[in-house]
Order: sequence, then structure tokens, then C-alpha cells
Amino acid sequence: MGLDYRGRIPMLVLRLVALAATVSATLIMGTSHESAEYFGIKFEANYKKSPAFKYFVIMNAIASGYTFILSFVPAKTSYGHFVLVLDLVMTLLLDSSISACLAIGQLGKNGNSNAGWLPICSRVPKFCDNVTAALVAGFVASITYLIIVIYSLHNLINLLTLKS
Amino acid sequence: MGLDYRGRIPMLVLRLVALAATVSATLIMGTSHESAEYFGIKFEANYKKSPAFKYFVIMNAIASGYTFILSFVPAKTSYGHFVLVLDLVMTLLLDSSISACLAIGQLGKNGNSNAGWLPICSRVPKFCDNVTAALVAGFVASITYLIIVIYSLHNLINLLTLKS
Repeated sequence: MGLDYRGRIPMLVLRLVALAATVSATLIMGTSHESAEYFGIKFEANYKKSPAFKYFVIMNAIASGYTFILSFVPAKTSYGHFVLVLDLVMTLLLDSSISACLAIGQLGKNGNSNAGWLPICSRVPKFCDNVTAALVAGFVASITYLIIVIYSLHNLINLLTLKS
Repeated sequence: MGLDYRGRIPMLVLRLVALAATVSATLIMGTSHESAEYFGIKFEANYKKSPAFKYFVIMNAIASGYTFILSFVPAKTSYGHFVLVLDLVMTLLLDSSISACLAIGQLGKNGNSNAGWLPICSRVPKFCDNVTAALVAGFVASITYLIIVIYSLHNLINLLTLKS
């Protein structure tokens, strides 16, 4: 089975889109920082201050490396199934990292008055904008990986016909 | 293709495990509440107070319904592939809901001193224990769904052999 010539070009395009998105997400989140004062105490906002943001950077960095390798390694029949499972795991990890990050980002923007957690985006607006941009890139990466998985599946078992 | 008789029993067991886990996660998170006082102001902790917890309850409720239907509907060849894609989407949604919830739960437990968010688990310990229990159930559901997807894939294309 594996991918024939006809299927190779769309897959390469999908991998390159995913590569651009994961690299952007890693760099934007990883390099963004902003200082602010909070009741007279100076603090620095960066990804290292939140476990969810750290997880996001690590997962997107791993996905970048993985996608880079897969973009230039020809998809051979002999390990095509294994790559499909790895793609599936990568989709789940990206999905999970963006969800964790979105939950924290939403809290940063709106706060949670019940928990006594105040919104902080008004104090570090540049950092919040960068987090939003990183989330958009992460979202594109996540969706692209879902498309890669469904497309690979479709190449192995035709999903559009009801019969197999 | 679809599942033959040999594959039906393990799949039913997996669906029932997923059903038990998603129903538990929904009920534990959905019914848990605790009142506490915070600087003299009374507040109530329940899932409705956090978008991440709401998302968790909704996704686990949807997954419960979906799993219930799939447990008792025989897997016919004619829609086997469609069910595989639905299972994949369900895995992603459960994965995403547990990640969002975990990020907020971790914040509730440890707080984030940089953002000025104090831990609240010491004030609502019973609610926090229930959230932990719901997260464990959600985690079991998520892993079970990943196994369901990989097992279905394995039934369609043998993952253990390198040749197809």
C-alpha cells in the first residue's frame, strides 16, 4: 500500500504547511516575553512561567523536528503504517498542547472571578497578542495534522466509498 | 472489511470501558460542587464556573452518548470507515477536553505566582479531589479511545506486519 506517486505531492504540501505552522508556533511562543509591574512588583511574562505554555513549546518543537524529517524522507511502503500511527500520536499531542494553552490564555484574557484570578492581558498586552498568534499557528498545525491522518487513511482505505 | 466476529468482542469490551469512563467523568465533574468563603465573600465552586470544566463535561457527555450508541449498534462493513473517522474525532475531542481541564486543575492546585493567581484547592479541597477523579476517568476514556482507533486501524490494515 503506502503512498503512490499521485498521493506524494499533496502529502508533501501538507507536511510543509505543518512544518511552517509548528516552527512558527514554537518560535512565537518561545521568544515572546514582556515585563510588567504588578502592585509595585516587577514580573516577566514568558512561556517558562506557565507549565501549559512550556508544554506547548516543547510539543511544537518536537512536531517541527518530526515534520522536518518526514517532509524529506520518502514514504516507503515498509514503514507507511508505522508513520500513520506516529502521525496520529503527533495530532493528539498538538491537539492536547493547544487545548491546555487555550485554557490558560482564556484565563489570562478574562480571568476567573470565582477563583479570584484576575485577567493579566491588560498588563502584558504584547505577550498576550503573541500567545494568540502562537495559538493560531498551533491550531493550523493541529488541523493540518488531522488532515494528514485522514488523507493517509484515505490512501490506505478509501474513505469515500462505503464499500471497502 | 469492517470487523469480523473475532474482532467484535475486544471492541465491545473497549467500548464498555470507554462508556464507563466517560459516564463517570461526566457525572463526577457535573455533580461536584463546594462552597467556600474567600476574604469574606461566599463563592461556589462547580464546573459551570470554568469554561474548561464546562467543555470537559459537554465533551464527555457527547462521548458517553456516542459510545452508548456504538456499543449496541453492530459494526457493519458499510459504515465501518465512517465510524473510524468519528472515533478519531472523538479521541481528539476527549484529548483536548482533558488537556484544557488539566491546565486549569494544575493552576487550582499550584497557582501561578507570576500571574498573581493563587492556588484555590486548599479552600475547596473536596471539589479539587472530585476534579482529580474526573480527570482520571477522562484520561482512561481518552486512552481507551486511542486504543479503539489503533485497534480498528489494525483490523483494517495489519499494523504489526511491515508489508501490507
